[in-house]
Amino acid sequence: MKEIEEITKALIEFRNERDWEQFHNPKDLALAINVEAGELLELFLWKKAEEANKEKVKEELADILAYSFLLAEKYGFDVKDIVMNKIKINGEKYPVDKSKGTAKKYNEL
Amino acid sequence: MKEIEEITKALIEFRNERDWEQFHNPKDLALAINVEAGELLELFLWKKAEEANKEKVKEELADILAYSFLLAEKYGFDVKDIVMNKIKINGEKYPVDKSKGTAKKYNEL
Amino acid sequence: MKEIEEITKALIEFRNERDWEQFHNPKDLALAINVEAGELLELFLWKKAEEANKEKVKEELADILAYSFLLAEKYGFDVKDIVMNKIKINGEKYPVDKSKGTAKKYNEL
Amino acid sequence: MKEIEEITKALIEFRNERDWEQFHNPKDLALAINVEAGELLELFLWKKAEEANKEKVKEELADILAYSFLLAEKYGFDVKDIVMNKIKINGEKYPVDKSKGTAKKYNEL
Repeated sequence: MKEIEEITKALIEFRNERDWEQFHNPKDLALAINVEAGELLELFLWKKAEEANKEKVKEELADILAYSFLLAEKYGFDVKDIVMNKIKINGEKYPVDKSKGTAKKYNEL
Repeated sequence: MKEIEEITKALIEFRNERDWEQFHNPKDLALAINVEAGELLELFLWKKAEEANKEKVKEELADILAYSFLLAEKYGFDVKDIVMNKIKINGEKYPVDKSKGTAKKYNEL
Repeated sequence: MKEIEEITKALIEFRNERDWEQFHNPKDLALAINVEAGELLELFLWKKAEEANKEKVKEELADILAYSFLLAEKYGFDVKDIVMNKIKINGEKYPVDKSKGTAKKYNEL
Repeated sequence: MKEIEEITKALIEFRNERDWEQFHNPKDLALAINVEAGELLELFLWKKAEEANKEKVKEELADILAYSFLLAEKYGFDVKDIVMNKIKINGEKYPVDKSKGTAKKYNEL
């Protein structure tokens, strides 16, 4: 079994043992990702980039990934496919010659 | 090569071609995850769970995953390890007998 | 009429003219605040604190405030009362002698 | 003194007593708003709109408002002016005849 499929299977099993599928609609999964993203952000609040607690970053990032994998599964998305496809889309928005070394958004290039 | 390693390699290559590593410190990567999470959330705003545009969900979710993989790489985390480990931690916070069928937070169980 | 009451009245009028009250339940208002907060955050992404576009900050911050006033109104909260009361609560969590000059969270003081 | 000026004065006093101005740059204030917005959102997670704990909503909303007032003060914005001005801008984006009764975004009207 592929890696992400294996992780997703473990997440689904965890969810189903607790009878939580009833709560996991796409909207609330999107909320969950935002809640966890906010908890990750808090680890950097008032701090320099290198000052966040690494162990806590690990946990919050794992939560974001977990809900992201569950949302992908809910829609039947293949994680590798959608990220690889987004890289292609972004490559068109951000051509190397225009975007090299600048943090400008594509609509400002 | 494993799946997530392969995705991450593609993301790093995309970043390096544009000389963007200078911007990708952990704090700004955490910001980026939040920005993309907000864009995902907007697709559900004022809507029922099933009314979001599936193609747009695909793109925003891909962005969240991309920055999450890049942040994991920045810290040297193995994505599979940290998610599997978080499942274990959550299993202790949410024992099946107490958490079955309820959306309560662990500190309210 | 007091200042915040006046602002809120203008927001409610704008909403009612468009028959949008049907969408403005507390959950979606909380989503809206998060969406706008993400848009504010994007203005600082990959940038130093002083590099954000001031005019855009103005607009995004106005959106956050607008939805926050609408959510307060929805619950019947008086904005001044709840902020003043939160200052009191925070004063107990963060006594001056322990919290002076440190960005630590109250549970780490 | 006007209401918002009075609230802001109390917030600044609280901040200065703790010597926290050094942490309150605009970027971290934008982070703080996002962190608090995430905490507000969590109160609605997996729940119906009317099921959030009202007392907790009060506290999280107060935090969002507090950091929003502090960010406005940092840039020298007048809260009433910027919200009233945003209502005007939104009125042009969302003319009553096109936007009445629909939750569509202005670029989809």
